[in-house]
Amino acid sequence: MDFYTIVRPEHLNHYHYLFGGVMLRWVDEYAYVAAIREFPTARFVTRAMDQVSFTQSVKNGAMLRFQVKREKLGKTSVCYRVVVFARDLQAKEEYHVFETAVTLVSLAPDGKKTPLPSLLPEL
Amino acid sequence: MDFYTIVRPEHLNHYHYLFGGVMLRWVDEYAYVAAIREFPTARFVTRAMDQVSFTQSVKNGAMLRFQVKREKLGKTSVCYRVVVFARDLQAKEEYHVFETAVTLVSLAPDGKKTPLPSLLPEL
Amino acid sequence: MDFYTIVRPEHLNHYHYLFGGVMLRWVDEYAYVAAIREFPTARFVTRAMDQVSFTQSVKNGAMLRFQVKREKLGKTSVCYRVVVFARDLQAKEEYHVFETAVTLVSLAPDGKKTPLPSLLPEL
Amino acid sequence: MDFYTIVRPEHLNHYHYLFGGVMLRWVDEYAYVAAIREFPTARFVTRAMDQVSFTQSVKNGAMLRFQVKREKLGKTSVCYRVVVFARDLQAKEEYHVFETAVTLVSLAPDGKKTPLPSLLPEL
Amino acid sequence: MDFYTIVRPEHLNHYHYLFGGVMLRWVDEYAYVAAIREFPTARFVTRAMDQVSFTQSVKNGAMLRFQVKREKLGKTSVCYRVVVFARDLQAKEEYHVFETAVTLVSLAPDGKKTPLPSLLPEL
Amino acid sequence: MDFYTIVRPEHLNHYHYLFGGVMLRWVDEYAYVAAIREFPTARFVTRAMDQVSFTQSVKNGAMLRFQVKREKLGKTSVCYRVVVFARDLQAKEEYHVFETAVTLVSLAPDGKKTPLPSLLPEL
Repeated sequence: MDFYTIVRPEHLNHYHYLFGGVMLRWVDEYAYVAAIREFPTARFVTRAMDQVSFTQSVKNGAMLRFQVKREKLGKTSVCYRVVVFARDLQAKEEYHVFETAVTLVSLAPDGKKTPLPSLLPEL
Repeated sequence: MDFYTIVRPEHLNHYHYLFGGVMLRWVDEYAYVAAIREFPTARFVTRAMDQVSFTQSVKNGAMLRFQVKREKLGKTSVCYRVVVFARDLQAKEEYHVFETAVTLVSLAPDGKKTPLPSLLPEL
Repeated sequence: MDFYTIVRPEHLNHYHYLFGGVMLRWVDEYAYVAAIREFPTARFVTRAMDQVSFTQSVKNGAMLRFQVKREKLGKTSVCYRVVVFARDLQAKEEYHVFETAVTLVSLAPDGKKTPLPSLLPEL
Repeated sequence: MDFYTIVRPEHLNHYHYLFGGVMLRWVDEYAYVAAIREFPTARFVTRAMDQVSFTQSVKNGAMLRFQVKREKLGKTSVCYRVVVFARDLQAKEEYHVFETAVTLVSLAPDGKKTPLPSLLPEL
Repeated sequence: MDFYTIVRPEHLNHYHYLFGGVMLRWVDEYAYVAAIREFPTARFVTRAMDQVSFTQSVKNGAMLRFQVKREKLGKTSVCYRVVVFARDLQAKEEYHVFETAVTLVSLAPDGKKTPLPSLLPEL
Repeated sequence: MDFYTIVRPEHLNHYHYLFGGVMLRWVDEYAYVAAIREFPTARFVTRAMDQVSFTQSVKNGAMLRFQVKREKLGKTSVCYRVVVFARDLQAKEEYHVFETAVTLVSLAPDGKKTPLPSLLPEL
């Protein structure tokens, strides 16, 4: 599953590059969307995020692609690898800027871990 | 091309449903992303949006899917139909909530209309 | 009824002009304010927005004037024409940048259409 | 000159009343808009705000009216009284919630005080 | 008690200096945090803010320090002096940019003033 | 060095708990502030963040304390441990909610790593 966003002035740090904290917020959001698309009736919270490296500064106007793939499927949790690519304004090539894995856990209404529902077949 | 987002408290109007203006902002953004994915070297601005109807209130926690399809391809502009579906929290079914068409025009650096580059083949 | 706002960096797209989606959000908001000023006891939601054209890029620092006029008055709905003018920073003249019509419908607490209350006389 | 806004969930503090800091931000913004409407070619910055009292909590969905009146006109500065009234959702009566005075000073491009241009006659 | 923040593009006015309204929002927030650190079980609202002067423009990338000191302790209210210093990007020296006093009042759940709890000793 | 913030409605996910992505954004910001306080003349970017676990949901109105301690000091980079504690509204006790380590690297204007300046003695 791929997700896309555009870097605008409101997302920049004071050096006029993408603020790392905004990247982390998007990664968390898109991992959640991936999980809820595969398990629509589950109630998920983010449990963990792997170590991350910021190796490339991202510029205003870049299009980001968040490639999200299921990596591990547990009884009560699911882990997605999120790889982020950027394509600069008016450029053709995209390049790798960020990568991590996000684990989400399925909770019952009382806040305790509960088994995941079955995977939605069509995704 | 499909795009996804989650409705959170910051997106709600004072009745605690999705604020229509936020929906319009997302529609504009995803039509732009669709265009830039197909024509990466173009410089686009939104030129027009068709009449819109809001027929369904959208709740906090709903997942929105923005289905974006190219509808018309002109010499200097391109038009995308954007159809939005919502899936309520922990529900399986999605339902139609919104539909419009967005026209983007390709501009030269001097701000004048300029022919679109050729379509990126792989999309 | 006129409404005003200033375009600041947080409202810009990556070309450093006003992001069209932000304009649409303001138009939706000011049409609602106009309706609630005329019908304070009603419970309104946006039902429709006419086709829109973006014919002028708006710069950082511009003052926007949203001129909102009641255009049609139905039994359960009301329509406002919204015309937007911009005045550039330190300039004297304003120019037309955007125009549409927004229809709002009066809802009962159960979400069904309900007749509008009588118009507040003093507005 | 009157300005209007609607209190939405994104403006609330954790008690679900209007966050005072958001009120102050709006007061600052509307005083600036009033000044720039009267002196379009000036370059203004806020210089001072009078002591303020928050005497009423404002609820989600309230419509705020910012009544802005010129109070003092100096050679290089101008002061506006800002009185804020709220009208609760579906209520007819508005009530006083806030009052202050904001002084703006006219600056030259080098950042030094400079005489105000003449007042725009039609406002 | 000292609080810190960084000025980023989203905080700027259209002249690319810190928007005064954002400064006021931070001052209100940090005075509240100071109060809640000293009186954790109280329920506070901002009651008043002293006259303020903006004497220095603050640039993108500056680090702000909000120095907050208890100034007056009443039976149902407490007043903090907030002095704000800025340090420009890659500069060593900080300079005074803003100063005010914020009064918070302790409320009971019914919204009436109620005596402050005893001061948390360790702060 | 300790940093504080209050969780408000705009920071919540659709379950009305703190959105994990907002926590990550704050952690990134406060690690940066810690670094810039110790090395004011450096130009820092975030290079890495350790694996993180979200073990506790954080409620609206909670006060967060970000305890930031320098953990490693390299020639061109510095690493801070960030431990986050929450204190619920009107509660006296705080509890541990989050922990990670953030590495920042010192860059020259050309974007290459450059040795850190000497540590500011008074911090």
